[in-house]
Parts: sequence; structure tokens; C-alpha cells
Amino acid sequence: MDAQLRIEQALDAALRLGESKAAPPRLVAATRHAVFPGGARIRPRLCLAVAWACGDDRPALADAAAVSIELLHCASLVHDDLPCFDAAAMRRGQASVHAAFGERLAVLVGDALIVLAFRALAEAGRHAPERLGRLVATVADGVGAPEGIVAGQAWECEPKADLATYQRAKTGALFAAATAAGAQAAGHDPDAWRGLGDWLGEAYQVADDIRDVMADPALLGKPIGRDEDLDRMSSARELGLAGAVAHFDELLDQATRSIPDCRGAAALRALVQSESERLVPKSWVSRIRSGQAVPAQVGG
Amino acid sequence: MDAQLRIEQALDAALRLGESKAAPPRLVAATRHAVFPGGARIRPRLCLAVAWACGDDRPALADAAAVSIELLHCASLVHDDLPCFDAAAMRRGQASVHAAFGERLAVLVGDALIVLAFRALAEAGRHAPERLGRLVATVADGVGAPEGIVAGQAWECEPKADLATYQRAKTGALFAAATAAGAQAAGHDPDAWRGLGDWLGEAYQVADDIRDVMADPALLGKPIGRDEDLDRMSSARELGLAGAVAHFDELLDQATRSIPDCRGAAALRALVQSESERLVPKSWVSRIRSGQAVPAQVGG
Repeated sequence: MDAQLRIEQALDAALRLGESKAAPPRLVAATRHAVFPGGARIRPRLCLAVAWACGDDRPALADAAAVSIELLHCASLVHDDLPCFDAAAMRRGQASVHAAFGERLAVLVGDALIVLAFRALAEAGRHAPERLGRLVATVADGVGAPEGIVAGQAWECEPKADLATYQRAKTGALFAAATAAGAQAAGHDPDAWRGLGDWLGEAYQVADDIRDVMADPALLGKPIGRDEDLDRMSSARELGLAGAVAHFDELLDQATRSIPDCRGAAALRALVQSESERLVPKSWVSRIRSGQAVPAQVGG
Repeated sequence: MDAQLRIEQALDAALRLGESKAAPPRLVAATRHAVFPGGARIRPRLCLAVAWACGDDRPALADAAAVSIELLHCASLVHDDLPCFDAAAMRRGQASVHAAFGERLAVLVGDALIVLAFRALAEAGRHAPERLGRLVATVADGVGAPEGIVAGQAWECEPKADLATYQRAKTGALFAAATAAGAQAAGHDPDAWRGLGDWLGEAYQVADDIRDVMADPALLGKPIGRDEDLDRMSSARELGLAGAVAHFDELLDQATRSIPDCRGAAALRALVQSESERLVPKSWVSRIRSGQAVPAQVGG
């Protein structure tokens, strides 16, 4: 089955675990709104690609790993968009959850999605009970304290933070969990695969910083210039746009070279390559390198 | 070991899973603030008492079950206290997390505690991998949609809700999960134990409604009269104080009678009895029955 279709179907099945006639209807609607339509689904795609490279001998467990990672990502977006954080009215081209359903339901949807991520893993755990504990630990470490995405967001509440530590936690940790969980779901050692997630996660954070400056808000599906507005740490602010692009290229190169020699290596390299172009299009790179890229939004 | 001590030590050990030099210091401090000092710790006490009644052959797993239930309870309190819900400045006699650390950290602490609950279960799962999946599912069902405490809170965001469904989800579900998880951690069938949690949970919600009207705010550790102020569903508002007390007594009686015949039965009956007096003191009951209990806060 096509990976994208497999992911959407698995997400739908996971959401149904939290739905019934006994559930509050607006919570159900708001939770679906947070998950569909999705973004690029890059984390679950990466998770499934690694599981496939490792033999994918327990597809239901790999699906659950991919789904849990994506649900946790969605939860973090819903909470990040809250008025006390980014106060974002738009997400993925539609109203953010708090804008559409109110702040209280947005808090609850994030909570419900975190719980559902682990519920989905437990459900699939029957297919390989001996793998479940380590898988739950890997996924939890990618999202919780001390170094997961919740910690990354919490660095924004500290008087002082190191940019690399912040980015590693805010974005890299869940990518590393995605590759590690993909390997574990297929019964393989996760350590050989963490590097790919780490490098790619760091590249995503840098790309996000570049896109916050360069992108068309309609294409991005959310407002731009937020790092500057919120005085938030950013590679683009720290290194300049050209420096950030050079850093992004280097990280993707490291990611590609970290892929172990296996049956899925070519597919994974192609995935990294296509994401590179999607995230930071070549046309931007030439504009940035020729010094023509100072969008009106920045410093304006 | 004394159950109370065992619980505090297990909570401390679980929190340390989320702490390291790499963690944001204010997140670590705010998370501890949310968990210590605790309230009555009734849910984990109940969980351990049931595990003991069932033989407690995997104490580390029972500890993790008790801890996960209490961490999820703490998470729900932190989020319930947020400005968009109860806007409570006090909790357990000290500043609530958002009052002490700000709204952003309060959102993140709740998220981190939910993740930590499952992380702690995964850690202990190595002691009995074949029990872990069902244990995670039981705990997740107690807190998530469609019928766990998150759903209970979400009923407050619906235009119409049934009081019993709301109370069952908001309080009963986590109590039922506590007794079921205690049995499962010890390798027993959870179904024989759900009744105790169900009845007791419903009794707690009714007690909470009575206490919201009757208690001294200094003793309660949080403001009173909030149900009236927030126009929230409440047994005391629906049945009147005397009716709510009669309902409370009946629920405790059902809880006591549901305890299966086992080595822990007497201890569990004693636990229910002492909680009854702690929650709704006999002195209140006589005042309410004699019609002398119309505190100045209500309708004032």
C-alpha cells in the first residue's frame, strides 16, 4: 500500500479509538480538525520508511509507531498555537483549533491527542508485546522532558537558552524518535537510525527558520515573520539567511550519509532529497545567494 | 513499606525520569510544584490497595500503575486551573502552577506529566511485558476520549450535557482506571474491580460538589463556590445539599458492597470508610440534615 494512504488510514483508525456516541461531540470534531487535513506527514513517512528498511515484520506496530509520532506532533501544534504561545489563528491553511473551537477545547484536544498516541501503541502492542515497552519509552522520550519537544517549547520560557539545545529538543527529538521507533517496531536496534532523525530534525528546524522569513504565508498555511515578532531564537536571525541555507545543506548531507546500508537506503535518500527541495526550494537559494532575498516582512 | 511512603518515593523516581542537566530548569521546578506536596493521593492508594488484594506479585509494575494514575490526575488539575478554565490561583494550599510559573509553563507541565505517566509505565513494563499493553490501554482510557477525564472536562464546553455522564467521565473514569490497573498490574482480571472505582469516583464527584459549597477554603486549599460562579453542573445544585449527602452515602455503600471477597477486603473497606469521613465530615452532615447549612458564600 502507498505509504501516504497507509498513514491516513492508520490515523483515522487511531482517532476512532477515542470516538463513540458517549464522547462530547465538539471534542471529537476539534480532534479531527487538529489531525485532518495533515501537513507533509514527514515524521510518520520517515518512521514507516525506516520500518520498511528494517523488514517491517510487524506492520500494525509500525503503523502505530508512525501514528503516535504524528499525533504527538499534531498535539504540539495545537498547544503551540494557543494564545499564550504563538497566538496563531491559522494552521495548515485553515483556522487553528483554538480559533475554530475556543481555547478550552484546544487545551483538551492537545491532551487527548497525547493520550491517544499511547493508546494506539498499546492497541498494536498485542502484535509484539516484547517490543512495546521500549517503543513507548522511545516515543515518550521524543516528546517529554528532559529533552523532547515539550522541553524544547519550555526553553522559550527560560531567561537563557542555547540555540542548538533548544532546536534539538523542539524539533530534532521527535524526528529521532520517528526513525528509532520505526526500527524498533520492526525489531531492529534503534541506535543505528537515530542519526538520520537527528540530522533531519535539525535541518527541519533550520528550514522552518528560513521559511518563517521567506515563504508566502498562503503557501505556508500560517503567518510569517513570527520569530522576529516574538523575539524567538532562530538560525536565520543568528546566521543570516545565506548562513542558514549553507547550514541546512550541510545537515541534509549528514542525514543522507547517516543512512545505513540496507534494502531501503535508496528510497530513504530519495525521501531526504525531495524534502530538501520542498522545504527550501532551489529558487530561494539562488535569490538568497545573490543577495536579492530581503523580504519586506523582515525588519519592516 | 507504608503505602503513603511507597507512593511518594515512586512519584519522586518517576519525576526523575524527566529530569537531567539538559532539561529546562523552570520546567523541572514547575513539574515538581504540580506533584509535591500532594493531596490525599487517594487514586494511587486505591490502586496499590487493589494490587495488594490481588497478590502484588510485580510491585514495580503496581507502583508504576499508581504513579501513572496520580501524574495524570496532577496534569488534569494543572490544566483545569488555567485561566481559560477555572482561573484558580490556589491549589493544595499553594499557588497553582500557572499562578507561580505562568500560563505557558502550566500548559507544558500538564503535557509533560501526561507523557511521563506513560513513560513510567514503559519503564516498569520490563518486569511483565505481557501485562503492559492492557495496562497502558486501561490507564489511557481513564484519561482520554471518549469517556476519560479529558472528555469529562470537554463536556463543560458542550451546549448540553447529562450530569451523570459528565461526572462519570470527569471523576469516575480515573478512579475506575485506578482499581482496574491495580488488578492488572498484579495479573488479575480488572473487571471484578471496576465497580469499586466507579462507585467511589462518583462519590468523590458528589463530595467535591458538596465541598465546593460547605468547606473552609483554607482547608480545601482552593477557592469555594466555583460551581455557582462558573455556572457548572453540580449535584449540590441539582439535588440540594441534603439530597447530595444522601446520594453520597448511597454511593459509598455501593462501593463497599462491590469489594470482592479477598485478602485485602477489610483494608479496602476501612479505606472507603476513612475517606468518607474525610470528604464529608459527620459534623457537616448533621448541620445539613438539620437545615442549618446555608453558607454565606452560596447565593451571596
